[in-house]
Amino acid sequence: MNHIFFILSIILLLPQLFVWAYKDDTVNIHFVPHTHDDVGWLKTVDQYYYGANESIQVAGVQYILDSVIPELMLDSNRHFIYVEMAFFMRWWRRQDDTMRENVKKLVRMGQLEFINGGWCMNDEAGTHYNAIIDQMSLGLRFIRDEFGDHARPTVAWHIDPFGHSSEQASIHAMIGFSSFYFARIDYQDYKTREKAQELQMVWQGSQTLGANSNIFTGALYHTSYGPPSTFCYDIRCKDPPIQDDPDLFDNNVEERVKTFLNYTLEQAKHHRTNDIMLTMGSDFQYMSAKSWYTNMDKLMKYVNKDSRVNAFYSTPSKFTKALYDANLKWKVKTDDFFPYADCPSCFWTGYFTSRPALKGYVRELNSFLQSCRHLEIFATRPVKSEKFRESVVGQGSHVLEEAMGVAQHHDAVSGTEKQHVANDYALRLHIGQNSCQNLIKGALNTLINGPSTIVFDFKFCEYLNISSCVHIQDSASYWFIVYNPMARSRKVPLRLPVKENSSYTLTDVKGNTLDIDLFPVSSITKSIAGTSGTGKYELNFIADLPALGYTRYELKYNKNKSRKISKIHKLNSAKSFTMKNNKMAVTFSDGKLTAVSDLTNGISLEMNQGYFEYNSSVGNEKHSHQASGAYIFRPNSSTPILISSTQTIQNINGKIVKEVRQTFSNWVSQVVRIFEGKDYVEFEYTIGPIPFKDGQGREIISRFCTPLQTHGVWYTDANGRSMQKRVRNFRPTWPLNQTEPAAGNYYPVNSRIALVDESKGIQFVLLNDRSQGGTSLKDGCIELMVHRRTLVDDKRGVGEPINETGQFGDGLIIRGKHYVILKHVKDIRHRSLGEEIMMSPTTAFSGSIEKSSRLGMFNFTGLAMELPYQIHLLTLSHDNASANTILLRFEHMFEETENNSTVTLSLANLFKYFTITSVVELGLGANAKLSDISRLHFATNNGVESKDWSQVYDPPFGDDLSIKLGPMQIRTFSAVYEWKD
Amino acid sequence: MNHIFFILSIILLLPQLFVWAYKDDTVNIHFVPHTHDDVGWLKTVDQYYYGANESIQVAGVQYILDSVIPELMLDSNRHFIYVEMAFFMRWWRRQDDTMRENVKKLVRMGQLEFINGGWCMNDEAGTHYNAIIDQMSLGLRFIRDEFGDHARPTVAWHIDPFGHSSEQASIHAMIGFSSFYFARIDYQDYKTREKAQELQMVWQGSQTLGANSNIFTGALYHTSYGPPSTFCYDIRCKDPPIQDDPDLFDNNVEERVKTFLNYTLEQAKHHRTNDIMLTMGSDFQYMSAKSWYTNMDKLMKYVNKDSRVNAFYSTPSKFTKALYDANLKWKVKTDDFFPYADCPSCFWTGYFTSRPALKGYVRELNSFLQSCRHLEIFATRPVKSEKFRESVVGQGSHVLEEAMGVAQHHDAVSGTEKQHVANDYALRLHIGQNSCQNLIKGALNTLINGPSTIVFDFKFCEYLNISSCVHIQDSASYWFIVYNPMARSRKVPLRLPVKENSSYTLTDVKGNTLDIDLFPVSSITKSIAGTSGTGKYELNFIADLPALGYTRYELKYNKNKSRKISKIHKLNSAKSFTMKNNKMAVTFSDGKLTAVSDLTNGISLEMNQGYFEYNSSVGNEKHSHQASGAYIFRPNSSTPILISSTQTIQNINGKIVKEVRQTFSNWVSQVVRIFEGKDYVEFEYTIGPIPFKDGQGREIISRFCTPLQTHGVWYTDANGRSMQKRVRNFRPTWPLNQTEPAAGNYYPVNSRIALVDESKGIQFVLLNDRSQGGTSLKDGCIELMVHRRTLVDDKRGVGEPINETGQFGDGLIIRGKHYVILKHVKDIRHRSLGEEIMMSPTTAFSGSIEKSSRLGMFNFTGLAMELPYQIHLLTLSHDNASANTILLRFEHMFEETENNSTVTLSLANLFKYFTITSVVELGLGANAKLSDISRLHFATNNGVESKDWSQVYDPPFGDDLSIKLGPMQIRTFSAVYEWKD
Repeated sequence: MNHIFFILSIILLLPQLFVWAYKDDTVNIHFVPHTHDDVGWLKTVDQYYYGANESIQVAGVQYILDSVIPELMLDSNRHFIYVEMAFFMRWWRRQDDTMRENVKKLVRMGQLEFINGGWCMNDEAGTHYNAIIDQMSLGLRFIRDEFGDHARPTVAWHIDPFGHSSEQASIHAMIGFSSFYFARIDYQDYKTREKAQELQMVWQGSQTLGANSNIFTGALYHTSYGPPSTFCYDIRCKDPPIQDDPDLFDNNVEERVKTFLNYTLEQAKHHRTNDIMLTMGSDFQYMSAKSWYTNMDKLMKYVNKDSRVNAFYSTPSKFTKALYDANLKWKVKTDDFFPYADCPSCFWTGYFTSRPALKGYVRELNSFLQSCRHLEIFATRPVKSEKFRESVVGQGSHVLEEAMGVAQHHDAVSGTEKQHVANDYALRLHIGQNSCQNLIKGALNTLINGPSTIVFDFKFCEYLNISSCVHIQDSASYWFIVYNPMARSRKVPLRLPVKENSSYTLTDVKGNTLDIDLFPVSSITKSIAGTSGTGKYELNFIADLPALGYTRYELKYNKNKSRKISKIHKLNSAKSFTMKNNKMAVTFSDGKLTAVSDLTNGISLEMNQGYFEYNSSVGNEKHSHQASGAYIFRPNSSTPILISSTQTIQNINGKIVKEVRQTFSNWVSQVVRIFEGKDYVEFEYTIGPIPFKDGQGREIISRFCTPLQTHGVWYTDANGRSMQKRVRNFRPTWPLNQTEPAAGNYYPVNSRIALVDESKGIQFVLLNDRSQGGTSLKDGCIELMVHRRTLVDDKRGVGEPINETGQFGDGLIIRGKHYVILKHVKDIRHRSLGEEIMMSPTTAFSGSIEKSSRLGMFNFTGLAMELPYQIHLLTLSHDNASANTILLRFEHMFEETENNSTVTLSLANLFKYFTITSVVELGLGANAKLSDISRLHFATNNGVESKDWSQVYDPPFGDDLSIKLGPMQIRTFSAVYEWKD
Repeated sequence: MNHIFFILSIILLLPQLFVWAYKDDTVNIHFVPHTHDDVGWLKTVDQYYYGANESIQVAGVQYILDSVIPELMLDSNRHFIYVEMAFFMRWWRRQDDTMRENVKKLVRMGQLEFINGGWCMNDEAGTHYNAIIDQMSLGLRFIRDEFGDHARPTVAWHIDPFGHSSEQASIHAMIGFSSFYFARIDYQDYKTREKAQELQMVWQGSQTLGANSNIFTGALYHTSYGPPSTFCYDIRCKDPPIQDDPDLFDNNVEERVKTFLNYTLEQAKHHRTNDIMLTMGSDFQYMSAKSWYTNMDKLMKYVNKDSRVNAFYSTPSKFTKALYDANLKWKVKTDDFFPYADCPSCFWTGYFTSRPALKGYVRELNSFLQSCRHLEIFATRPVKSEKFRESVVGQGSHVLEEAMGVAQHHDAVSGTEKQHVANDYALRLHIGQNSCQNLIKGALNTLINGPSTIVFDFKFCEYLNISSCVHIQDSASYWFIVYNPMARSRKVPLRLPVKENSSYTLTDVKGNTLDIDLFPVSSITKSIAGTSGTGKYELNFIADLPALGYTRYELKYNKNKSRKISKIHKLNSAKSFTMKNNKMAVTFSDGKLTAVSDLTNGISLEMNQGYFEYNSSVGNEKHSHQASGAYIFRPNSSTPILISSTQTIQNINGKIVKEVRQTFSNWVSQVVRIFEGKDYVEFEYTIGPIPFKDGQGREIISRFCTPLQTHGVWYTDANGRSMQKRVRNFRPTWPLNQTEPAAGNYYPVNSRIALVDESKGIQFVLLNDRSQGGTSLKDGCIELMVHRRTLVDDKRGVGEPINETGQFGDGLIIRGKHYVILKHVKDIRHRSLGEEIMMSPTTAFSGSIEKSSRLGMFNFTGLAMELPYQIHLLTLSHDNASANTILLRFEHMFEETENNSTVTLSLANLFKYFTITSVVELGLGANAKLSDISRLHFATNNGVESKDWSQVYDPPFGDDLSIKLGPMQIRTFSAVYEWKD
């Protein structure tokens, strides 16, 4: 053979050889059939389930599941994923055995795969980590209980939430997910990533947990969770079907294949591997699954005739595995995906504050749910008589659990739902709250378990924040129980409405008389209480509560004694005035707050505080039609306007509490409080109704300005847990073109926002009682948005302005609290204060004192010993697994930089009335043994890979079942327990 | 026992006893799940099938059938009906064996029932009886072939057509249906009937067939084929589902049951029996059947808890049986349900004329299809060589059959479809026409079967009406075959375009030279022929055609001979002028027709004829917003406006043909013709483009006024067959409040409209070549609407005005023919003329004469003997049943009052080349043995009941298979035949 010819042949053959050798040159197209079912948005969750209220939106989840299952059964190649367990549960419980067996088979075969698997697809900006973990567990455990461990979701799927938090990523990693997919990221970020093939990455959600919190993360192509343009085969879509019948007109196969290949080959170019995912579905699609599968079947058949592609049905988990098998090293992302913008004037930072009342209610019930669960466990304690047992409510805590699960949805607590849907969420929460109240009523009776046959009919006061409670405000004498859900004893300032300007005696369970202050109820509070009215006075005291337990107080009205109430002093606003106790000093000048001092550490800081408004844009021709609305914050000007100088300022000095009451306008006021023994200043604001008759939407902030030198930096929490560094007009991973100086610097503040001046060694932390948007637009200043009222829709689907009319019809009034602490830089006080705010106690009121038995357990702690200060008892609840097991979660609350101690905790004898005999460690979702959870650990370009949690945690050791907890760790156990004696 | 007490007890018990005894006091509610699938309307038939072009309408029939079948399989109580076989066939042929078996089982179980069963649900106003019978047979035979006789529909179901003809009722009775349901009847009629419990009746469709044409008929409640208001459970409906889950919010069972009972108990009050039908479905519904069945299941469950009702799934046939079992006597209806109005200004009489070109094309192809079928049979004749056989087209006549089946739909030939859909119908017809042309080409070659090896490449001229045919208009010499589909020999005037002003010789098959006239092609004809051009001259001759056969003509151009062509005489319009031959005389004065005489019977009649326009209403505030449009005729004034006096009038006198050419305006002209040996006057009008730039819609009529005294009475045909008496401003069965003097007196004229003056003993019949609207607004006058152009939509769904732009884009030009005869009252000439017009011959042109072989069969008749004049050979076609069977239909064309002879016909030796060896008589639908067809014969208040057709007809008798045919009878046979020698 001629050598030259031989070599030539080889060269000519080369391209073909490459094709053979590099088989993966084919683009693998993963068709992922899916439906995105909002757990309430334009319609309520039940309306969506039924397909009711169709004039608003054609959407009926029952039909989706009805329709998909038979299609999957027809062809084992077909796949489907289902996400929202709130809906799946509704459907599942009405299915007969045959259908259940069919579905189970499909799940076993992998055709039907649960993805994400929480009760809802939760919001990431307005949610608290405790509630996220609860709602994920609720759904994931449902899957485990009904389908077994093989059905356990391995993929996090947040395709619709409007921004993504690092705590969410960390939680997903702790649950055991291998990957996390979402669609909505900032449009500038998207463009940068698309160009650089960086839509996929490894996200390290927690600095402290480090690589172990890594999760493979994919931003969906074109920031869309729908199918490629013109390839939507839902019967409500208007795209062309595949028309391939040789006997019919309009054959479009050639054109469809060409269009599809153009799209997908382009998509492949923007990804590093040869696997791409097509999300074949969208909101409430697959009500008639046949049209989807028929056309996808055909489309795949025809496109697969082109050797460049290989299209097949898949799922996000199979897609993840394919990416993993590509064996690449991925770039590591350590910050988060806030804020989200989809165009230059379109920052989705309004919803950080939208519907502040709903956000507040959801947060309040988070701790109430924990108390409810605790008492549900304690109430199973063996009692002398079963008579009380009957009164323990049958419904249990799950009614509130499910309502809370629904409320975490990304159109629920986010505030981006229609008003009637917001009402529905509130109603569900209220029903859950009532259910838990009944449970607690029964549980307390069981625990008290006195010799008396009296069943105490406890009442609950839901409006103590406005000094209104029909059960007590006109009562002469009564007693009440205060339950503390924290695993440490604590002192909590409480305030009760009382009727008379006379002498009251408050005694604790040991018979000691407590100090009290009686303050006149303010005219503002009276005006917002409505027809129920308020007490005439507010009785203030400090409750001293046992750890994870309760104690009793008795209030007696002494008719004939007269007692001096604390007087209101009208202050001359021109003059400077300092309110002070042994912990804090607060100075006012010109009617406003000008300085705060922490007397325990000697830090004193100038601090100007006031209320400002941004005027909402309704869109303008010149720049953008974008209006401010439920989702989007877009002020007319990035400089907020001072609402008013102080109009009146008053001071009341009690022994326990000292207040300054400021009125700024007829709709903005606040009370600034300091408490005996407390190192914080409480700001209780009352905002609303926001004026709107001038046609101007308004978004209200409370702003604090200090001389702190902060160099454009501030800190916000992620879902109430890890802290995020924020830098003004800056994003860590791409060169930001800042187009909205105010809105574009807003971030979610779930529990706290902080300024740090390293040179002065001072940190200034502002904590809140619900999620809000916040920022620092000027060095030394921080602001939180407390309320908003916009008058036009912002065109992101909800179709309504965020214009809550409230109980009086003229506008919602918001009352909430901010807490200010001033500490040295390294001080970790914000952690314990955060825990205290988050875990508010529950008070149950009983009748007149005469009726009560003095015998019985009126002082109770569930713990044999208090937990170390680093450890938060995150969960103590029933465990479906069996009757004598409980679910426990322990959380180390500190970042490594805050407190790097590893704490050892003995579980066996942690509780006072029962012993833990054995534990099984679970993943954070409490849906699988930790040892069964194996994640895909993607290689990173920093060389550090995650490990399975079972490799990270030492198992409980010793007879006392000791466990270790390092910074930021949360460990979850299913524990078998036995009642003592 | 005290006797009084005993009696009292009995009396008190009586009401309860009655309940027990009269069990039927319960209202039986028949839920009839159905979908109404238009075979083209807003989208084309294939677009509807696929679910393509969804931006126009969300509708995909494939998914309907996909989705319903599994739902039926889930629960044997569930029922569904399917109607339109054009769609069902499309679906069926793509199903696998398993699915087919499932469907067959459902059909056997009666869960899936075919109703109506035609290819489409045909229009009743614009259709010809031949086409109706063909399209019904096409669908019904499909059902028989695929599912067997047990699947045979027994119910006629015309829930959407806009008016109902008595011929349709008669055809339904002849097919063997037991009942006929529809929704649209005049609103005044409806009110009257609802009040009088006369929504259900027995309809005697044919005066001659009498009670045997009776069919039980039901007008649907509220003139609606949808479900009761708020009970639509289609996923595209927005009605509330049944919300009954105890764990969900918004339970609505009580309210839903109450609303349902209110509706249905009210409905029951308007009916005579305790059975009512709910039509649960509507246009293109059940694309997701689950939502329907889930909610109907629930609704029935809950309403059945009320003892007043008994709701269940049913079908129209089960409903019919229930009504039959009620054993009542029903009122007999003998007139029809035209015209249909749904409000005072809303007469659906515009569609009688809408899209005159499409209507004309459909009618033209009706006879072409018959020719095609005839030749398809004849071409199977054994031939010496099989070489020609190959050229017999494989596709057969079914392509045109199906296209014609589609075109009979009530939004097809009716003219009420969108323009793009009208184009699609025309395209389908054209493809079918081409297919039949190919078939005929092959068939003629087979039959001619000469010794030559030449295969004649016959060409067809589709535009001879405008003297345009590229195949012949420039040819020197050629020969051609003319096929006559009538079972009698006949003489037919024909007209061919030729190129030169020279001598032509036309010879027949025997070599005889025929008389010809050469007329110059008019400038109007030239102007509308477009780019193809026309011949320069029109060659007129009379073809003498064999019965059910063809003959050959040869045209030779004699280059060197010059021949005088007929001259055009410009007439002085002021002068009177009479055009005359030995049969007819036509007089013109002042440029217009003023008198017509039939010289054969001496009847002479003053007759003013001209073209008028109604100006279309666009709706007006004062009276009604109703506009004139595709469906509705609503003129601004009921007095039409004369378009123009004659501008030019010319006369051409040939030996065979004499013409007067009248030009009225630049868009209205006509040629009035009389023919040698013919006793009619032909009016060939050319109308268009209708001016519209002044913003005025126009509807054009040709009006004839005579001195006949008609007393408000005139006659119109029903689908080209039986005649209907019409009385101005009158309806036979209810007191009419006439609100539209013109539109409210319009009726469909499918083939003829007639005036009769009993005192003078004269009938004046005007026949047409396509369906049109017509009326007599003044005694002695009749008018036919020939063209219409409206500029706004009439809001009945089509969403377009009827504004056809035509090939030049400025407006459609219509050329059509009217035929006038003047006869004595009892003369039945209109029947034979009607048959001649309906059965137009087919001409196939071959190349130059030189190439042709003179040997072979160039003169052919399929018949051994011509049929008697009373008998029309309605069908001669292939029969799917087996290869050696044919389908035959014989029709007695006369009403009893016209010709009451019973004709005997021997079938065995009817055909020349084959013998019929046995026959099986079928129902008119050719889908079942007559002896197998048993109808429900409802008792009537006139005491006469229908009989089964097998009781009416004597079976064929004798060796020669003789059959008897009485007036108006049509008998259908499947015949086994054997070729002779």
